[in-house]
Amino acid sequence: MTEFELIERLCAELPTNPSTVVGAGDDCAVLDLGLPGRWLLFKTDAVVAGVHFQPDTDPARVGRKALARCLSDIAAMAGCPTHALVTLALPDQFDVAWADGVYAGLSRLAEQHGVAIVGGETTSSRERALVSVTVLGSVERARCPLRSAARPGDAIFVTGELGGSLASGKHLDFEPRLEEARWLASQVSLHAMIDVSDGLAGDLRHILKASGVGAEILADAIPLSQAARAVAGVRASNSSVGGAHPPALVAALTEGEDFELLFTIPAGEAVRLLDAWKQRFPDLRLGCIGKITAARGLTLRERDRAQPLTLDGYVHFQKP
Amino acid sequence: MTEFELIERLCAELPTNPSTVVGAGDDCAVLDLGLPGRWLLFKTDAVVAGVHFQPDTDPARVGRKALARCLSDIAAMAGCPTHALVTLALPDQFDVAWADGVYAGLSRLAEQHGVAIVGGETTSSRERALVSVTVLGSVERARCPLRSAARPGDAIFVTGELGGSLASGKHLDFEPRLEEARWLASQVSLHAMIDVSDGLAGDLRHILKASGVGAEILADAIPLSQAARAVAGVRASNSSVGGAHPPALVAALTEGEDFELLFTIPAGEAVRLLDAWKQRFPDLRLGCIGKITAARGLTLRERDRAQPLTLDGYVHFQKP
Repeated sequence: MTEFELIERLCAELPTNPSTVVGAGDDCAVLDLGLPGRWLLFKTDAVVAGVHFQPDTDPARVGRKALARCLSDIAAMAGCPTHALVTLALPDQFDVAWADGVYAGLSRLAEQHGVAIVGGETTSSRERALVSVTVLGSVERARCPLRSAARPGDAIFVTGELGGSLASGKHLDFEPRLEEARWLASQVSLHAMIDVSDGLAGDLRHILKASGVGAEILADAIPLSQAARAVAGVRASNSSVGGAHPPALVAALTEGEDFELLFTIPAGEAVRLLDAWKQRFPDLRLGCIGKITAARGLTLRERDRAQPLTLDGYVHFQKP
Repeated sequence: MTEFELIERLCAELPTNPSTVVGAGDDCAVLDLGLPGRWLLFKTDAVVAGVHFQPDTDPARVGRKALARCLSDIAAMAGCPTHALVTLALPDQFDVAWADGVYAGLSRLAEQHGVAIVGGETTSSRERALVSVTVLGSVERARCPLRSAARPGDAIFVTGELGGSLASGKHLDFEPRLEEARWLASQVSLHAMIDVSDGLAGDLRHILKASGVGAEILADAIPLSQAARAVAGVRASNSSVGGAHPPALVAALTEGEDFELLFTIPAGEAVRLLDAWKQRFPDLRLGCIGKITAARGLTLRERDRAQPLTLDGYVHFQKP
């Protein structure tokens, strides 16, 4: 059983209520608490020592990452984060300076985005540290892109460049695309949006599944990061992962932790978006990588052939 | 450095913003997001295997406890819980049935209180399980009792009976006092309120510190649970904890995990409250245990002497 199968199983019959617009299964939960014109966004995420960061990683970068992951999920809903709660689970042998560092990194990023940290719990976790962050935010009701809203014919876009995030350290220092996401929501008819945390292939599949559609993506259009190209050189000689695909493309499709925005809009708005984007965000790449199809399945068009893409995104654990 | 000193240190300079009414330091954070007539309540809490529950504890009771602790904090603000997020950190060797059980316990309690579970994250924690729950709720603006609102002359009340919660299993099966708290807020001028999670002595001190006041409590008025009396018999012979105090009283003052309501109201409303309470909640004890004083410090009046109470509440860990 994979992580995703376990989540699906656990979330199959969760209790709900009338103020829940979207429960488990999107980047954030979407709640209608009677706030005039707006929905609330609600998201939690945890990072664990030895799993999401190394014991010798600068604690300020650990704290920053813990919050940035949640902010990236708020971005994927085109929302505005407002408040955060932090739980710090500490091993028996911990350094107070390490805890200070985590909070320093958290606080700095929170301040940049006007987010108040309104609670800090600590607990003992005996062997290894865990930092869990929950973020609350809000979004205009009319402008909240859901995973389920992709439609056949939509153009598929992705910001930035993909792959090699773990190798390059981007997974610790990435900028949550909050400003870009809200700008997108104000400029185009955003249909579906998600942040690329598990890898392009896996995250696009989340959109396709929720929307009941398929997609065709173009291998040559997928923006490969320098880090993906660099690790690809090393890998090409000794890895069979990805079969016939070039290793840098496999990295971009599967490694995850990119925290870029993946979204769909009506194809008719694509050219106007690309022009406006270049004016507004000249330093951040935006690429059209394919289209949504009525036929289910995910197809990769590579050189002169199109074939089903079987690669999957990053899976955090697999239960035998 | 104790747990509370560490939290105080970490929360000393957290970023805030204008929509934060109360940040870290009360049972819940209180937020003003523009909801007409209401504030939002926001709280997170975690339970860890081997710390807050045993590996062989029924997983449904573990899940129930994880949520009930947060609901008890919402109760301490006289609030109404609406939504919860769950993070399940699982060891390498975990049983899918165990995770199912945790969710079953969580879901059952959530349903009882109309709470929607709107997200379920899972992550690997390698050695031991951790269940972290975040709850969102709301409260009438005019009726939110804060820890900082106790005033000299207030009468101090506590619901239920204290002590022996870990021995009796109450810490797994307690009922969050949500209904009682909202009824109290509608009936009397609630000043300060807190839930008794760290022990009466420690939690009353949280109120005294936040309100800048002192208190005198009466040893004979403190409601001792049967479990506290039972364990006291065992302890009396071989323990020096508490010095001259009877062991059952020490248990009630320090053991914690009672999850009862501790609150203060103007003394003039005390008799009316006791009468009305008996009508409304005939099966749940409510006791007046003392009064708030202008002079700082916590005094215990026992038989014919009054002396400073030096016993403290439960401390989850102590950093040498």
